[in-house]
Amino acid sequence: MAVNLTVTPADQLQAIAGLRIGTTEAGVRKVNRKDLTVVLIDDGASVAGVFTKNRFCAAPVQVCREHLAAGRGIRAMVINTGNANAGTGHDGLVRARSTCLSLAQLLEIAPEQVLPFSTGVIMEVLPYERIAAGLPAAIADASQAHWAQAAQAIMTTDTLPKAYSAQVEIDGVKVSVSGISKGAGMIRPNMATMLGFMATDACVSQAVMQQLTAELADASFNRITIDGDTSTNDSFVVIATNQANHAPITSLASPQGQALQAAMQQVAVKLAQAIVRDGEGATKFISVTIEGGKTEVECRQAAYAVAHSPLVKTAFFASDPNLGRILAAVGYAGIDDLDQTLIEMHLDDVHVVTQGGRHRSYREEDGQRVMKQSEIAVRVSLGRGSASTTVWTCDFSHEYVTINADYRS
Amino acid sequence: MAVNLTVTPADQLQAIAGLRIGTTEAGVRKVNRKDLTVVLIDDGASVAGVFTKNRFCAAPVQVCREHLAAGRGIRAMVINTGNANAGTGHDGLVRARSTCLSLAQLLEIAPEQVLPFSTGVIMEVLPYERIAAGLPAAIADASQAHWAQAAQAIMTTDTLPKAYSAQVEIDGVKVSVSGISKGAGMIRPNMATMLGFMATDACVSQAVMQQLTAELADASFNRITIDGDTSTNDSFVVIATNQANHAPITSLASPQGQALQAAMQQVAVKLAQAIVRDGEGATKFISVTIEGGKTEVECRQAAYAVAHSPLVKTAFFASDPNLGRILAAVGYAGIDDLDQTLIEMHLDDVHVVTQGGRHRSYREEDGQRVMKQSEIAVRVSLGRGSASTTVWTCDFSHEYVTINADYRS
Repeated sequence: MAVNLTVTPADQLQAIAGLRIGTTEAGVRKVNRKDLTVVLIDDGASVAGVFTKNRFCAAPVQVCREHLAAGRGIRAMVINTGNANAGTGHDGLVRARSTCLSLAQLLEIAPEQVLPFSTGVIMEVLPYERIAAGLPAAIADASQAHWAQAAQAIMTTDTLPKAYSAQVEIDGVKVSVSGISKGAGMIRPNMATMLGFMATDACVSQAVMQQLTAELADASFNRITIDGDTSTNDSFVVIATNQANHAPITSLASPQGQALQAAMQQVAVKLAQAIVRDGEGATKFISVTIEGGKTEVECRQAAYAVAHSPLVKTAFFASDPNLGRILAAVGYAGIDDLDQTLIEMHLDDVHVVTQGGRHRSYREEDGQRVMKQSEIAVRVSLGRGSASTTVWTCDFSHEYVTINADYRS
Repeated sequence: MAVNLTVTPADQLQAIAGLRIGTTEAGVRKVNRKDLTVVLIDDGASVAGVFTKNRFCAAPVQVCREHLAAGRGIRAMVINTGNANAGTGHDGLVRARSTCLSLAQLLEIAPEQVLPFSTGVIMEVLPYERIAAGLPAAIADASQAHWAQAAQAIMTTDTLPKAYSAQVEIDGVKVSVSGISKGAGMIRPNMATMLGFMATDACVSQAVMQQLTAELADASFNRITIDGDTSTNDSFVVIATNQANHAPITSLASPQGQALQAAMQQVAVKLAQAIVRDGEGATKFISVTIEGGKTEVECRQAAYAVAHSPLVKTAFFASDPNLGRILAAVGYAGIDDLDQTLIEMHLDDVHVVTQGGRHRSYREEDGQRVMKQSEIAVRVSLGRGSASTTVWTCDFSHEYVTINADYRS
């Protein structure tokens, strides 16, 4: 049961000039479901990506990195569900490269101009032949209007598709931003991976694309956690088709750069939060803010310690204001010289902890009231500086165990 | 349901000369249960402790550290269940000190000679008066024969008591080792804390007590994890009453030191593993060994990443050989220059992964067979050195969520 997750109607998703999407049923793992997506990009686009830091990264992630580094200009992406092509050794790399080659031949481009993405079960052989056989149908299906369809086709055990758009004016020209994402655990029970794709028709020089992509990821996908497990396949790719009629953005600090980044961040945050709202077994959406830190790094450490704690997460599931668990998580976050007597904690508007102990005015009923909400904000002040950060997570329910304990069938 | 956890019969637990234990019902949180334990130690014992690294450590942990540092010789310990006296600010410290003072007055010793321990719900006021009122009965109950009784009295939501003994000869003199522990999550749902207490009548100079205690903890309690949550109250204390008739051990490297440490480690490992076997909702006992690392530190990082992964733990619960999750956890353990093509993985005797991919001879049925066992050994080789380590953990079941989502009642 997704938590307050709104699905954007297909006709409210903005087409992006210079980019077409096609999907088909390739039968990668199961029949009768769209499991293969191609994204066809006109010549001249700026493209950048950020990928999982997992050292056991999947073959397609390795190939994406190589192809982006080759610098020949990205012209297509191919995304399959049903198989993650991870933990597949040398053979997996061969199959990821073969997929790129097949699509490149059909489009008459170079294999290095194709980015491959796979999501699904780990440690099984990618059925490359079925993917290759499905490519012509996916290409034939390509249309600027297929964002909603793509959001559906990249789903694995997501319960709802995730797609959002925004518009913004750059130098008087209206440009569009659209994006899709998938994932409901950092690794899905069977189906691995978080994927995020965003595109805009705005003009952004390739020189700032990597910075833009990294900053967008940092403000969105890098702030979410379901279970703390970092997938082997996580990928986030941003495309600027450069087809809008304005001067190219060459600095993110310019007014134009700021405006575009703000619009894109708005979509990226929605896409990232949608993954949490659709988190495995999630019944609550929780914002964890740590403020008063010396550095943002230590705030993030503390925020993730809280957001990853199974004890904190089960307490949210139970609507149990067992709030000492949050203090304990902050305490073991690895901030060596933390002074517990300076800690303050709020649960929404309720002041729970002051000077490291229970606030005199705090009553269990007040904590209980907030814990029963479907959206909860935890705010902890460390009292040692002015840095802050926020991460988003969900609770930990019986359903999570059920989903993840299921056989891969 | 504890996993293969054997309970030592009371008459097989060794008395330790110079140390008596008494318990009583003080009604700290609930009536009709033993919830207060005192340990009375003859003058002249060597005592050391290791405590939680959680910066949000509980008041009794702070007082223990102060009293051990005071160096006046420890003569008594007082342990209550039902309330952890953690997250209680300055008032908590006052109450922990008052508890020590009360016991010191009854025993005619200094307050600094008393170590206090509390385990139970966090962020609630310690009912010091009830504890003080119970002390005379606990003292009156004191006997060398009460190890089993103490193992019962320090339980919170443990399903079984944990107590073990060993004997060893030092210079022809038979000495005894006894220990008890409690805890079933790093933080219990309501009842916080891992506690471990060991004693021997062997003669150990105070100069090596801290090293002995730290090394014992490192080989036992520091190798277990239920859920990765580090308690605010974790404490492990070792007492040598120095009453056996042999020359004091002044070096752990001596044959006598080695012999004693080996016997003590045997008990410490049993006490630590008992906590995992009785882990919240545990249905399986899992050893995770990482070998072929450059350093023990990186082996430990990888072992804990595997042992903490909710995805790995739910797969064990389901007996599902979804073994890519183990690879993924090793991959995100933070070993930056890990080469995935060198990774080998065994599940008991089954060779699952070679050179980072599925082993040609691996069949799902073989993985399935091992996953169905109640005790499972995972062995991952990183192929980059000769360091290794082992940690012990349990699976992650519906019962874990049920236990931790329960209201504090």
